[in-house]
Amino acid sequence: MKTLKDLGEFPLIRAIRSRCRVDSSVVLGIGDDCAVLRRRRGMYELITADMLVENVHFVRTQQPEAVGHKLIACSLSDIAAMGGAPRHAVVSLGLPPDLPCTYVQALYRGMNRTAAAFGVSVVGGDTNSAPLVICNVTLTGEVEPNRFVRRTGARPGDEIFVTGCLGGSAAGRHLLFTPRVSEGRFLAVNVRPHAMIDISDGLLQDLGHITRGSGVAAVLEAAAIPVCAEAAGISDALETGEDFELLFTVAPAAGRKLRQQWPFPDVPLTRIGVITAGRGIRLRGLDGRLRARAARGFRHF
Amino acid sequence: MKTLKDLGEFPLIRAIRSRCRVDSSVVLGIGDDCAVLRRRRGMYELITADMLVENVHFVRTQQPEAVGHKLIACSLSDIAAMGGAPRHAVVSLGLPPDLPCTYVQALYRGMNRTAAAFGVSVVGGDTNSAPLVICNVTLTGEVEPNRFVRRTGARPGDEIFVTGCLGGSAAGRHLLFTPRVSEGRFLAVNVRPHAMIDISDGLLQDLGHITRGSGVAAVLEAAAIPVCAEAAGISDALETGEDFELLFTVAPAAGRKLRQQWPFPDVPLTRIGVITAGRGIRLRGLDGRLRARAARGFRHF
Repeated sequence: MKTLKDLGEFPLIRAIRSRCRVDSSVVLGIGDDCAVLRRRRGMYELITADMLVENVHFVRTQQPEAVGHKLIACSLSDIAAMGGAPRHAVVSLGLPPDLPCTYVQALYRGMNRTAAAFGVSVVGGDTNSAPLVICNVTLTGEVEPNRFVRRTGARPGDEIFVTGCLGGSAAGRHLLFTPRVSEGRFLAVNVRPHAMIDISDGLLQDLGHITRGSGVAAVLEAAAIPVCAEAAGISDALETGEDFELLFTVAPAAGRKLRQQWPFPDVPLTRIGVITAGRGIRLRGLDGRLRARAARGFRHF
Repeated sequence: MKTLKDLGEFPLIRAIRSRCRVDSSVVLGIGDDCAVLRRRRGMYELITADMLVENVHFVRTQQPEAVGHKLIACSLSDIAAMGGAPRHAVVSLGLPPDLPCTYVQALYRGMNRTAAAFGVSVVGGDTNSAPLVICNVTLTGEVEPNRFVRRTGARPGDEIFVTGCLGGSAAGRHLLFTPRVSEGRFLAVNVRPHAMIDISDGLLQDLGHITRGSGVAAVLEAAAIPVCAEAAGISDALETGEDFELLFTVAPAAGRKLRQQWPFPDVPLTRIGVITAGRGIRLRGLDGRLRARAARGFRHF
């Protein structure tokens, strides 16, 4: 099988370049020292990065298309959580010289398909030899100055909502999820959430980022939490990472309106609790009792 | 010694955040799903990425400050080669859990010192566990729409110039070089080079990017090439990578003016040859004979 060493670095870059479609905001894409981009006037720029490392985030036997999809989709989920629209991606790769060329082709096929589906142009990057497969994407986006949504604005009385279902990542959904870009944009434009985050480390831990950052507490209703059919139980939904659903808080009046007007019939929207004054997170169990819960979830160290 | 596993992921992120200074263009830096940035009106944005992998680009026994410096400086060199001004950096790290915390502190010390020296704000990133140290930076910059310099504009008759000296990277300069940001910006604003690139893969190979991209040929004068005192000989200057000097071509009249007006007394500026019609690169040796040279240099595969 033809490997990267057989192909060579510059033919690899040319092959990548020929597969990356760009839009009219791209003055200069892959192939020079930098990409050159036009930005829309009056918008703030968003920027986020995600790294995937072989044997940490994925293994060689998983479909490289799915790894490519995940790479772009992780960062799309971050742009969504700010209420922004994604624009440009820069991709760095570390690749073993004996890797089959078909692996890299499939990786880019997955990346490019997802990038195109969400209006993202891949405009540059860096290729390196490495002892294992390493992928890093930096994704930019744009958002109106008065519309971006931080993690830190939750207020007592807010209702807590989540999109989709939680706890499915253990069953493989951590590779093939749909980033909630349209949903995040709809919320930023129409609902103005007080705080929003994407669930990448687990519901409790990511809600902890909102409550600590906002100086508030939260009460979750165990009966309300939308647990994925593939999940082993509610603890998967509370503590496993990589759901990539949106978690946000809105004022009660906005919450009522939102439930009536939610325009995404395929994506469940669920009210799972309320923000209160104080500190910490409590969970009301099926027995009606409130119990304190640590903001625990996935951590790299 | 305290390791990353002892410290934990979120304390690590907080420690990083407290050390990253940002300027007033940064609406939101490290700590949310994305950074939020203001861009200057009427400027194009530049974006570039560089990945450094342990045992490929550096080893654990080298100073982590120097690795941090190099990470930022590599990308600064790319911004310089477009004639732009650097602005914001996003840094992704893959780190072994048993790595001493002091290693990461020193890595960031090196990054932050160089970032600050060149007006760059570190605004975000991603931290991951990994079996070896991996660093990726994405750097943005800005440039006037009529001033950025591509690799592909060289014309027959142009003079070829290079900053600094070449071939010193084997002697350790590949870690501790100065990116030619002020020089690149001076050239873009005052001289308008027809083509420019930074020498990262070796003079011949990077000149090859200019000649092939521009559809022209080049004649180099061996006697003129500024060989670093540390280099073993001219072949180091021609074919080893990571000099990170600027290589550019200008019309003869602009070249004369440039040699009179070069405002960087500590940085040599040398005319090393001319662009001609045709294809390929020829080197005039010390014996006066012209010999064809392959555009050979460092390649990852």
